Amino acid sequence: MSYVTHLEGAIDGARLPAHTVQTLHEGRPIWVRYDLGAVGASVKRDSLRDREPTMWRYRELLPVRDDANIVSLGEGMTPLLDCPRLAARLGVARLQIKDESQLPTGSFKSRGQAAAISMAKELGITRLAIPTAGNAGGAMAAYAARAGMEAYVFMPRDTPVVNQLEAAFFGAKTFLVNGLITDCAKIIGEGRERLGWFDLSTLKEPYRIEGKKTMGLELAEQLGWSLPDAIFYPTGGGTGLIGMWKAFAELEALGWLDSADRPKMFSCQSSGCASLPPAFESGERFAAPVENAHTVASGLRVPRAIGDFMILDAVRESGGRALAVDEDRLVEWSSLGAQAEGISICPEDGACIGGLDLALQNGWVSRDDHVVIFNTGAAQKYIETMQADLPEVDHTSIDWSLIER
Amino acid sequence: MSYVTHLEGAIDGARLPAHTVQTLHEGRPIWVRYDLGAVGASVKRDSLRDREPTMWRYRELLPVRDDANIVSLGEGMTPLLDCPRLAARLGVARLQIKDESQLPTGSFKSRGQAAAISMAKELGITRLAIPTAGNAGGAMAAYAARAGMEAYVFMPRDTPVVNQLEAAFFGAKTFLVNGLITDCAKIIGEGRERLGWFDLSTLKEPYRIEGKKTMGLELAEQLGWSLPDAIFYPTGGGTGLIGMWKAFAELEALGWLDSADRPKMFSCQSSGCASLPPAFESGERFAAPVENAHTVASGLRVPRAIGDFMILDAVRESGGRALAVDEDRLVEWSSLGAQAEGISICPEDGACIGGLDLALQNGWVSRDDHVVIFNTGAAQKYIETMQADLPEVDHTSIDWSLIER
Repeated sequence: MSYVTHLEGAIDGARLPAHTVQTLHEGRPIWVRYDLGAVGASVKRDSLRDREPTMWRYRELLPVRDDANIVSLGEGMTPLLDCPRLAARLGVARLQIKDESQLPTGSFKSRGQAAAISMAKELGITRLAIPTAGNAGGAMAAYAARAGMEAYVFMPRDTPVVNQLEAAFFGAKTFLVNGLITDCAKIIGEGRERLGWFDLSTLKEPYRIEGKKTMGLELAEQLGWSLPDAIFYPTGGGTGLIGMWKAFAELEALGWLDSADRPKMFSCQSSGCASLPPAFESGERFAAPVENAHTVASGLRVPRAIGDFMILDAVRESGGRALAVDEDRLVEWSSLGAQAEGISICPEDGACIGGLDLALQNGWVSRDDHVVIFNTGAAQKYIETMQADLPEVDHTSIDWSLIER
Repeated sequence: MSYVTHLEGAIDGARLPAHTVQTLHEGRPIWVRYDLGAVGASVKRDSLRDREPTMWRYRELLPVRDDANIVSLGEGMTPLLDCPRLAARLGVARLQIKDESQLPTGSFKSRGQAAAISMAKELGITRLAIPTAGNAGGAMAAYAARAGMEAYVFMPRDTPVVNQLEAAFFGAKTFLVNGLITDCAKIIGEGRERLGWFDLSTLKEPYRIEGKKTMGLELAEQLGWSLPDAIFYPTGGGTGLIGMWKAFAELEALGWLDSADRPKMFSCQSSGCASLPPAFESGERFAAPVENAHTVASGLRVPRAIGDFMILDAVRESGGRALAVDEDRLVEWSSLGAQAEGISICPEDGACIGGLDLALQNGWVSRDDHVVIFNTGAAQKYIETMQADLPEVDHTSIDWSLIER
C-alpha cells in the first residue's frame, strides 16, 4: 500500500492526481504528498532498526503501492564516515562524508532511478529515455535492465567515457549527440510520441526526488534522529538538495527529529557553471541560464536547472547559501579529500570541499559546527580528470633512486 | 578485545604467536584461530541484527584487539540480489548474486585490505607495499590513506587504466613495471628491508583472509543462517574462497547454522589462466604455475596461487569442482548477466556465469539447486573490455531510422 494522497505542482500548489502518469505541471516539477499522520500511526522510527539496510526501509515514505513493483539493486544506507584529518585541514570541529559512491553503478543517481523506475513499472510504462552528460545514464540503464524495460540514452560526445560505456553495457540503446545535454533533451522531446518514450530527465517526473530524499532520511537515522549544523551538496539539477529538504520537513511533521533546527543547506557549484549564486545574491527566485557552461565535473554541467526555485527556496529557508568555487581547483580539492580520508571523492564533490573552505573563511559556518558533505559518485568513473604520469620501473635493473625519492 | 588464540601454519599446522608481525610460514599462508567457545558465550547470532551494516558487525570473529585500530570505509553487508531472469536463462531454480561491486573502491578487495591494514595499524606498521594487476592496488591505497600510512604500489604496464589511476589518486606512490605481477612482487621482496615495507600481497600476511571471510558470514546471515547448495567464485589468488570456507567452519563450530550441509564450492577460472583444474582433475594438492597466462579478467591473471592447496582442499571437501571456461566468452557472459539483471558484473564474474552454465550442463549442480555467485568488482573499472562503438546522432537533422532500428 501507499500513503501518497496526491501530487502537487511545485510552482503553484495545484493538486494533481496520484497514480497516473505525470511529467511536468506548468513546465515545472511536481511534489509527491503523503498522509503523514497515517504514516506516523503505522510505523515508529525505532522499528526501522530491524529492516534491511536499503533505502526501501523507509517504505512508508516512498510512493510505490505494490511491493512487487519495487525495482531494486540493493541501493541505500551508504556509510556516513568521520573525516577527522580533512576536518583538521579545513579547520572545522566535526566533518562527515556520506559516501554515495558505494551505490549500484557507483553514484547517487541510483536512488532516484530506483524510485522513478519502480513507479514507471507500477504505471505500466515499458520504454524509457534519458538525456545525460554523466552518471544518470548508466544508473537508468542498469535499473531499466533490472526492470526488464527498454532504455534509450542520449549523451553529448564529450560525456566521460566510463558513462558512455556503462550505459551500453547494461543494454541501453545509447547514442552520442553532437551537442549539449539540452540538445539530447530536445531529441527525446521530439521522439516522445513517435517512440513511446517516458522521459526520465531530472525533475521531469515526480519520483526521482522521492528516491533522492532517502539521503536525508538515512542521514537523520544514522545521526540518531538529529541533524548536522550544515550540509554541503554539489548541485547540478539539484534533485538531492530538494529531496533532502523535503525529507527533513516530513521527518519534522512526523515528530521523528530530536534536533530543533534543520541544517543550513549549501549548494555548491563550479565557477564554470554557476547558475545559482547570482540569483541567490540578487534575491531572485529563478536563475538565468549559464552561457558557455564548462566544468570537468560532468554532474555540475547543468546550464539551467528546471527546479532552480525549489533549490533556492530550500537554501534560503535553511539559512544557507548558493556557492561557486574555482573550476580550476575542483580536482585539487577532490584529491585532497581522497588522500586525507581514503574516500573515492568525485570532482563534483571537490566543489563541496572548496565550498566548505570558503564558508569557513567567511564565517557562514562556524568552526565549531558539525558539517556533512555528500560524495555523490565514485572518482574511478572520471578517468579524464584522474590523469597521472606514473613512473616506470625496469625490474631487470631497478633504479632505487626513482622509488625512494 | 580479541578472541584470537594463535596463528597456525596452513601447510603444517604449526602454532605461531598472535599479535606479532607474521608474513608466511614455510613459504605458505597462515590461518588465524579463535576461541570460538568464548565467542559463542559472548554473542548470540540474533543480537547481530542491531549492529551497523558493515563487516565489523562480526567483530568477535575478526582479529583486531583495540577498536581504535579499525580502519574502515564502511565496507560490508553488500546486497544479495535475486536474479530470476538470469536463472531462467541458465536453467536453474534459484540464483542470487552477492554484489561486491558496491564496496569502497568498487571491489571485494576492500574487505581484505580493511582487515589487513587494521591489523598493520595495531602492530605499529606504517609503510605498506603491494604488487597488483587489478583492484587490490586501489583498495590498498584507499585504506592506507584512511589509516594515514605510506603506500607503495607496483603494477604491470598492462594493468587496467582505472586501477592505475585510482592508486595514484589515493596518494600511493605508484609505479608501472615492464613485467608481470611476479616481477612486481620481486621488486617488493628486494626493497623490503631497504624501504621498511610491509608486504600486503595476497595471502602473504594472515589477515586478508579474515576480511574476505566476512563474505561467508554475511551470506549466512542474509539467508537466515542457512547456506545455498552451491557457490560460484572467480578465483585468482583464492583468498575469498578460502575465507568463506573458513567462515562456514567457524559458524558450524558456533552452532549458528541451521542448514546441515555446506555448499559445494566451485572455483571459476579462465582458460587463459587455469591453474587449478589440472591439479583438481589429477588429484594433486598443489598446482603447477601457468605459462603465458592471459585473460581480460585482470583479477584472474594469477599464474601461481600461493594458497593453491587451501583452495583445492576447500573445493574437494565441499564436493565442488575447479572449473575453467572459455576466455573468449568472459565478456559475453558478464554482459549477459548485466543486461538480464542490471548488476555491474565484472569480467571475472563472467567466468562464474559460464562456470554455472558448464556445471548445469554436466549435472555437477542440479537444476533444482539454490546457487549464489559472487560479483567481485564493478564492470565500470574495466573500460578496456567494455569498448562499444556508439552511434552518433546529429541533433540538427535527426536520422530517426538510426534510432528506431
